[in-house]
Amino acid sequence: MITNAIGRAVPEQIEGYGRVKPFAGAFNTPPDMKRAAPAVKMRRPGESKLHGSLEEVFRAIPVKDGMTVSFHHHFRNGDYVLNMVLDTAARLGIKDLTVAMTALFPVHKPLLDHIKNGVVTDITTNYMSGPVADAVTRGILKRPVIMRTHGGRHRAIECGELKIDVAFIAAPACDDYGNLNGVMGPAACGSLSYAMADAEYADHVVVLTDFLCDYPLSPVSISQTRVDYVVKVDAIGDPKGIVSGTIRSIKDPVQLRIAQMAANVIKASGLIREGLSFQTGAGGATLATAQYLSKMIEEAGVTASFSVGGTTSFIVNMLNRGLLRKILDVQDFEREPIESIGSNPNHLEVSVDEYANPFNSGCIVNRLDTVILGATEIDMDFNVNVTTGSSGLIMGGSGGHSDSAAGAKLTIIVANLLRGRLSTVVDKTLTVTTPGESVDVLVTERGIAVNPLRKDLLEKMKAAGLPVKEIGELKAEAEKLAGVPGKIKTGDRAVAAIEYRDGTIIDVVRQVLD
Amino acid sequence: MITNAIGRAVPEQIEGYGRVKPFAGAFNTPPDMKRAAPAVKMRRPGESKLHGSLEEVFRAIPVKDGMTVSFHHHFRNGDYVLNMVLDTAARLGIKDLTVAMTALFPVHKPLLDHIKNGVVTDITTNYMSGPVADAVTRGILKRPVIMRTHGGRHRAIECGELKIDVAFIAAPACDDYGNLNGVMGPAACGSLSYAMADAEYADHVVVLTDFLCDYPLSPVSISQTRVDYVVKVDAIGDPKGIVSGTIRSIKDPVQLRIAQMAANVIKASGLIREGLSFQTGAGGATLATAQYLSKMIEEAGVTASFSVGGTTSFIVNMLNRGLLRKILDVQDFEREPIESIGSNPNHLEVSVDEYANPFNSGCIVNRLDTVILGATEIDMDFNVNVTTGSSGLIMGGSGGHSDSAAGAKLTIIVANLLRGRLSTVVDKTLTVTTPGESVDVLVTERGIAVNPLRKDLLEKMKAAGLPVKEIGELKAEAEKLAGVPGKIKTGDRAVAAIEYRDGTIIDVVRQVLD
Repeated sequence: MITNAIGRAVPEQIEGYGRVKPFAGAFNTPPDMKRAAPAVKMRRPGESKLHGSLEEVFRAIPVKDGMTVSFHHHFRNGDYVLNMVLDTAARLGIKDLTVAMTALFPVHKPLLDHIKNGVVTDITTNYMSGPVADAVTRGILKRPVIMRTHGGRHRAIECGELKIDVAFIAAPACDDYGNLNGVMGPAACGSLSYAMADAEYADHVVVLTDFLCDYPLSPVSISQTRVDYVVKVDAIGDPKGIVSGTIRSIKDPVQLRIAQMAANVIKASGLIREGLSFQTGAGGATLATAQYLSKMIEEAGVTASFSVGGTTSFIVNMLNRGLLRKILDVQDFEREPIESIGSNPNHLEVSVDEYANPFNSGCIVNRLDTVILGATEIDMDFNVNVTTGSSGLIMGGSGGHSDSAAGAKLTIIVANLLRGRLSTVVDKTLTVTTPGESVDVLVTERGIAVNPLRKDLLEKMKAAGLPVKEIGELKAEAEKLAGVPGKIKTGDRAVAAIEYRDGTIIDVVRQVLD
Repeated sequence: MITNAIGRAVPEQIEGYGRVKPFAGAFNTPPDMKRAAPAVKMRRPGESKLHGSLEEVFRAIPVKDGMTVSFHHHFRNGDYVLNMVLDTAARLGIKDLTVAMTALFPVHKPLLDHIKNGVVTDITTNYMSGPVADAVTRGILKRPVIMRTHGGRHRAIECGELKIDVAFIAAPACDDYGNLNGVMGPAACGSLSYAMADAEYADHVVVLTDFLCDYPLSPVSISQTRVDYVVKVDAIGDPKGIVSGTIRSIKDPVQLRIAQMAANVIKASGLIREGLSFQTGAGGATLATAQYLSKMIEEAGVTASFSVGGTTSFIVNMLNRGLLRKILDVQDFEREPIESIGSNPNHLEVSVDEYANPFNSGCIVNRLDTVILGATEIDMDFNVNVTTGSSGLIMGGSGGHSDSAAGAKLTIIVANLLRGRLSTVVDKTLTVTTPGESVDVLVTERGIAVNPLRKDLLEKMKAAGLPVKEIGELKAEAEKLAGVPGKIKTGDRAVAAIEYRDGTIIDVVRQVLD
């Protein structure tokens, strides 16, 4: 074991992953590699890419034991493709696959059967919740799951660290030569951002679609030049599953109070100005913050330059009302943004490379003024956990959390100080997802705490009369109400390794013993 | 010397280029390499890409003796950027540069001074005409110019054969983080297709713009993720120069007759049907053919699926009238297509990779029904010369000629049988640009000749009552009128090597001795 820059013990080596680079600070591990270089291909005029079934494609590639197969999660809990592909692999007797899915949801429960029968032996993902996450934390896999950030996954693919043999892309609309988009067809899901790196670098690219269009399809999210196989299936996913578990209506007075305070923090920091840029989430207080922020922008008579990240109806409404000039979109959470991205030229689909890859000539999060993010735990150094829950089970992951936190000028964590009967502020989070150095302000219903690294902000918050406290004070208050949380009992074995966006290991998740 | 598949003697080795792969047939040299793998970069939040001058950028990179600097020709004869960059290099005392410009025009005459003073020692291009082309053919450079096809240049860059140290991109509109497009600003030029490979694979990417926009700019033709430096200059080019020398009005009755016959060939081949796809050029009989083709499409009550290539007002008009569903655009020749590509979602900017790269999972020319191309000479095997003129001087080059000829089901060459007092049909063309195997029909004012490889077509042409002749008959007729052309006297030295789209050498151009 080695201790990394935030004091976490991480293994020196992970089986099936290789030597560990310990986390050394958000921008302290510059790249020293070249881009991945897939084999160059050729396709003669007249050759067809259309295949009658997934099995036919499996045989044509051919898919073999031990390969890495990749997927994207734009259908979230409505995805059909991952299960469909793994069922096919099982039928054909294929074993030892690594599943590289950008996020796993309860709908992917059948994956557990494919782990039990040996079809799947490894997983890498940016987020997981539900039965697969539970079973992983309880130790169902021999080797740790590698958990990345959205930007970090693109980086890992582009830098040759995550090598994809076969990418499976769920395309709401596709022509017979592989041009595809997410804005047309019965299962339109909007942006297809997460699938773009896979298409660019995988050895074989397979598109599944339930809406085959005339050539040439446009708009084009992923081009024919990188697509090898097209298969028409009955359905690629249930668009209703996109929404589930994402958008929660905000009526809780505590969350509203937190959101109002977070917006006040942005205002106090001087960022409510012409050209403000921001990212907000889709759930609870982060979504509510967007609503207060929107009001402030309107009252100030300014226009925000862009919002980035997953997109909600609320953000589309800001665009349509002229409060926001551009939406840079990686994922759509509701019907309205799906329609908007397909029709409004100021609502742009951007790749994850553009959004958040730390290793290119500059990604969008570098240009963020502020981001509002959640936390399940935060420690005295402002390190944040959004990976494991109070029982120690994995129930999330970074997604874009660490990416936007690292890029934004002002990173705000909004969180109830008490989660059930536990303090959110702790001495040491069970897991670190995002390092404290990229977190600026914690906003809770009982006051805000400013990272001591940001003395400039502290002065501004005080000057604005905001209820600033030391983070230790918040912890003490919470513990007075709820007591000191007992330590979660975990085993020694690492069931997941948390890779920071730059490819270093920031922490591991240890097995939960029942 | 070795003899290639079409009987041309080509050197085994070219200094500064390496071992020659002799042309072996249009699809007989499959790729056996991996994609180029540039170094991975990183840029921290807060870093600026804006620089005050080109000299500042030269020093920041730094640009050194012997580097390869690349450019794109969307401004054609109105380009200011190449001259501006080479002047800067000269001022800074830099020597031995290789200029990789997609096409060279008379406006680039100052390049000759930079060759004379040692700033530039090598050139690679897809097309050249004017003083530089003349001087090259007369032997001004020590080593041969490498002439590629548009698709072949993308391939050469992507396969690591054309390594670009610094790409200079002329951006009609750009933000301070490098997102750029060609459809806005005082010097809008439309599609920026030819610059895309350069941005993707060059070690350093420099954008010159005269229209700096608010971040984030959209639409995005080239993304911030690949742009390292942005420089504001007074003017990047004169849009008026785009048109010059390209669009010629067609009043010549001989050309009109040829065009009418070419359209009849398309009809006779059965291609006037729903979903027809086509490429036509911008000059003379090829443009006129589009007009007859358009009429046939209208009369048949069908809709063409797409046109691809450089785009004229006439093609935009077809789109607007509903005769054509999509324009896939690599370059704009007139004001109307520049406006259209910026506003009509069915008028799409496509990369050269998508257009014509032979080494990917399938390019657009593979889906072409028919292409109408020109020729300065054509031989008895239907090999076509569009590189050298009657004096032996270089006055063109493939551009997309060989690419679309290889992809299309029906490749038609339209040419006056007599050029001045010379026969266009010859025993042996001075230079071969496009191999005869990818040419199907020659249309002249004195009849059409069908490539004997296409017996199916011959039957259809005869059945339609078209004036079919043996290509030898056409040659005999021409020679009867104009005499047998004298052989052009050239030296032994190769001043240019013609690379076929797959990276093999199809021919060389020999020095013209005065």
